Amino acid sequence: MAGIHILRTSRLRSTLRYLSRFSSISLTARPTTLSVNLCSRFLSCSHRHQVHAGNDGQKVSPSAAPQRLSFSRLTQDDLAFFKKVLPGRTVTDPDLLESSNVDWLKSVKGSSEVLLRPETTEEVSQILSYCYSRNLAITPQGGNTGLVGGSVPVYDEIILSTAQMNKILGFDSVSGILSCQAGCVLENLSLYLEERDFIMPLDLGSKGSCQIGGNIATNAGGLRLLRYGSLRGTVLGLEVVLADGRVLDCLNKLRKDNTGYDLKQLFIGSEGTLGVITAVSILCPPKPKSVNVVFLGCESFQKLLQTFQLCKGMLGEILSAFEFLDSECMRLLNTHLKLANPISDCPFYIVIETSGSDSTHDEEKLHNFLEKAMTSSLVADGTVATEDAKMKTLWSMRERVTEALTHEGFTYKYDISLPVEQIYQLVTDMRSHLGTQAKSVVGYGHVGDGNVHLNVTSPAKDPALLASIEPFVYEWTAQRQGSISAEHGLGLKKRNCIYYSKGRPAVALMGDIKAMLDPKGILNPYKTLPDDVR
Amino acid sequence: MAGIHILRTSRLRSTLRYLSRFSSISLTARPTTLSVNLCSRFLSCSHRHQVHAGNDGQKVSPSAAPQRLSFSRLTQDDLAFFKKVLPGRTVTDPDLLESSNVDWLKSVKGSSEVLLRPETTEEVSQILSYCYSRNLAITPQGGNTGLVGGSVPVYDEIILSTAQMNKILGFDSVSGILSCQAGCVLENLSLYLEERDFIMPLDLGSKGSCQIGGNIATNAGGLRLLRYGSLRGTVLGLEVVLADGRVLDCLNKLRKDNTGYDLKQLFIGSEGTLGVITAVSILCPPKPKSVNVVFLGCESFQKLLQTFQLCKGMLGEILSAFEFLDSECMRLLNTHLKLANPISDCPFYIVIETSGSDSTHDEEKLHNFLEKAMTSSLVADGTVATEDAKMKTLWSMRERVTEALTHEGFTYKYDISLPVEQIYQLVTDMRSHLGTQAKSVVGYGHVGDGNVHLNVTSPAKDPALLASIEPFVYEWTAQRQGSISAEHGLGLKKRNCIYYSKGRPAVALMGDIKAMLDPKGILNPYKTLPDDVR
Repeated sequence: MAGIHILRTSRLRSTLRYLSRFSSISLTARPTTLSVNLCSRFLSCSHRHQVHAGNDGQKVSPSAAPQRLSFSRLTQDDLAFFKKVLPGRTVTDPDLLESSNVDWLKSVKGSSEVLLRPETTEEVSQILSYCYSRNLAITPQGGNTGLVGGSVPVYDEIILSTAQMNKILGFDSVSGILSCQAGCVLENLSLYLEERDFIMPLDLGSKGSCQIGGNIATNAGGLRLLRYGSLRGTVLGLEVVLADGRVLDCLNKLRKDNTGYDLKQLFIGSEGTLGVITAVSILCPPKPKSVNVVFLGCESFQKLLQTFQLCKGMLGEILSAFEFLDSECMRLLNTHLKLANPISDCPFYIVIETSGSDSTHDEEKLHNFLEKAMTSSLVADGTVATEDAKMKTLWSMRERVTEALTHEGFTYKYDISLPVEQIYQLVTDMRSHLGTQAKSVVGYGHVGDGNVHLNVTSPAKDPALLASIEPFVYEWTAQRQGSISAEHGLGLKKRNCIYYSKGRPAVALMGDIKAMLDPKGILNPYKTLPDDVR
Repeated sequence: MAGIHILRTSRLRSTLRYLSRFSSISLTARPTTLSVNLCSRFLSCSHRHQVHAGNDGQKVSPSAAPQRLSFSRLTQDDLAFFKKVLPGRTVTDPDLLESSNVDWLKSVKGSSEVLLRPETTEEVSQILSYCYSRNLAITPQGGNTGLVGGSVPVYDEIILSTAQMNKILGFDSVSGILSCQAGCVLENLSLYLEERDFIMPLDLGSKGSCQIGGNIATNAGGLRLLRYGSLRGTVLGLEVVLADGRVLDCLNKLRKDNTGYDLKQLFIGSEGTLGVITAVSILCPPKPKSVNVVFLGCESFQKLLQTFQLCKGMLGEILSAFEFLDSECMRLLNTHLKLANPISDCPFYIVIETSGSDSTHDEEKLHNFLEKAMTSSLVADGTVATEDAKMKTLWSMRERVTEALTHEGFTYKYDISLPVEQIYQLVTDMRSHLGTQAKSVVGYGHVGDGNVHLNVTSPAKDPALLASIEPFVYEWTAQRQGSISAEHGLGLKKRNCIYYSKGRPAVALMGDIKAMLDPKGILNPYKTLPDDVR
């Protein structure tokens, strides 16, 4: 049995020894291919009921596609223009188009007839200028890893892929500021930076496919938000092509700039509805020299919250993640993935990650925290890892929950942000509310960010169950001033749920902004804004 | 010659002990009253040439006030309305109005006839709704500590003060999220939080007067930006009253929310030209348990930059400030304020602050860094403080430069953001460019943020000198993609310089946003946007 090895020489290792009495880490491998990893993460937080786009307009839910708007239809002249601007990069082969017409979850499928793959900002500008004059609708597409149907056409929108815009433009190793084209894949940027002793300020399970432009367009959260903050602070500059082809150069590479309104913020999180992001500059933190991962068990969510507070105080500046899963998640990991609980059974489990610049200091802090958490009875059991493979094993207990859920049958998925004290109450209340109607109701997520992933499973798709979940889950969230989309955006699927989290004056103003920047509405139509505001 | 000695028994205290032999820390008191402190900071980064507002329209510089726009004039009926809405809080006494009509630097003076002091959002809404219908212009005013003439009327604009909107609305000690009215004074919020073991994510010299609403409206930078990032990441929610009186409730208290466009970002840094911020929610970091301050000397700016890189790597997560001043600043401190150099004479000086959760760890990190910096000959001399009084003494060498400058005669002040490698080249180039025309050319500022404060002094106001400085300083900055206003905004004084840092398409879009949110232009007219875009 592997477990985490215990050395005799005091401090953290003593703690490990103590904890290891209760531990039996399974070294069951994580999914070994990236695609499996991606899949499990992508499935984590999405409605899985299919949205058939381009159908007869029959509305099955607020996420159903609306009627096609009166954009022009693609002509041979249009194709001739695109082929002239993008020779060899104007894709019309239906087989090649297939994967760009459908989202990762295979829940939304469009019927676009052309995929454009520009390499330069100038090409994007020419395309948009032409489409604007022709009233042709466009769906910008990055890695197509979105979870709300935001990155695929709904009808016949032209797909504008940024995949060929994948050049690094520069890196300043003094300031840590990276600039690159929007189509750079997140993992490639991470590898580039790690060679230079820096890291990206964001990390996602989909990093092998997602692109930085898409990350920014959806204001992706991910695993490092607790430590490095949101993209709204770390993105320093953007270059954006507007609907009519104008190029907006806000590609600052400065930490500070108070000359006028910060226009780039409009495009962060606007899901490609206000402009096409073509280049990015972003502030990157130094690579931590020391990383530790801890897996703990708590008797109650109240104790878990107290542990979070203690942890923030005692780990302070080295705390880089505080994630949780409940015992139902553990049951699914055991049952479906044969992952053994590395500690004794508890109602709640925590994954804590530290990252810092001095391993001795970090381990001492961790030791002191664990000692205090144990003597205060906040934590019932736990285990610690400092080696890479073992850290990954512990992380997999959190990351593979989503994969385990796929074996349950059909899963209704919600991504909710709340005041942190209340995040688990939603799971408890939903469990009571649904009673025996659901197969299981599970909760996991980012405690540090106040973000819970609520999942309700059933043997198969179940409209009656869905009717019991929605709008209950949204109303419950709205009553507590939560967000019905913490990190995934609204896209096509959740656009009409916006009023649960935003007031009508705010949504109306969003409509004004859309009208100002894209008066013909050609950019990613049917997304983000509700049907009554376009 | 001093240098920092390396003791064999190591640890920071040894370093301290050794260093103290070469140090003669002057315990000359810092300015003991808040007003003196404030004054010195406020004078640090502003054009001091007076802008006579409401004059005959003679243009003396791009910062001169434009002609009055055709807003309505205040009538007795208007006053009667205001007195009904704000009984006892509608100020018309000229003596009481005086201090609100003039900015802190006494460089801009308006001639408003009424100061309104609402207590609630509803009152602000009533005022704006009325003014909008009457076409009356309004200047929102917080602590009136701005440096670019943004917080005072230019002509007879009604002054809307948020000073009475000073209530804390709530604090969540688990998440560290504070919500409060916009008129809360920054220092009061800091004191409130420190009692609860948290701190504000921003700190400014003007904290005794400035208000959080004004901080956000100007996107204030300050001393903690290196560590906690900008307000664009830490401000989680805003409540804003729009020009026509509509209340925009985006007062989220969530770390994550991706439901639609992030409207609050429009108002951060818009200097009161797009709406009046009435309430705020902000993410506050835990109070650090350990703080250290180091004062170092370097033989060249290149070595200073190398020290910065070393420092980022070795102090990592505990680095909270990296500031610099040049030998000219030190000469002014010696000459005018009788502050003794705590170390031997060097061309450049650094102030480093660390803050962390474990004093032993922090001191060890600092020791290791200092040892490496010395053995690499990056640093020529230095001294360290861990006690509060001594830390303040070391900090005063950086903070009182601005006060020292006021004794030089007249000072032309610039607040420039650049790629960090280039920040001192501006000072060097300006010195060469001006030759004997200037009394002195000095540089200091925030290395960590790439932000230099360039100051050029002369015995008295000197239009010929100004003509040599401007537009040279702006063109130099523009050529290097810098920002001509790193942290102070544009206000009245720098509005027409915006094109040095922003392209015409961007500025035109800013004008579109202004027109969308404030079609009559009644909110803080003549500010932020250049005269050719309103």
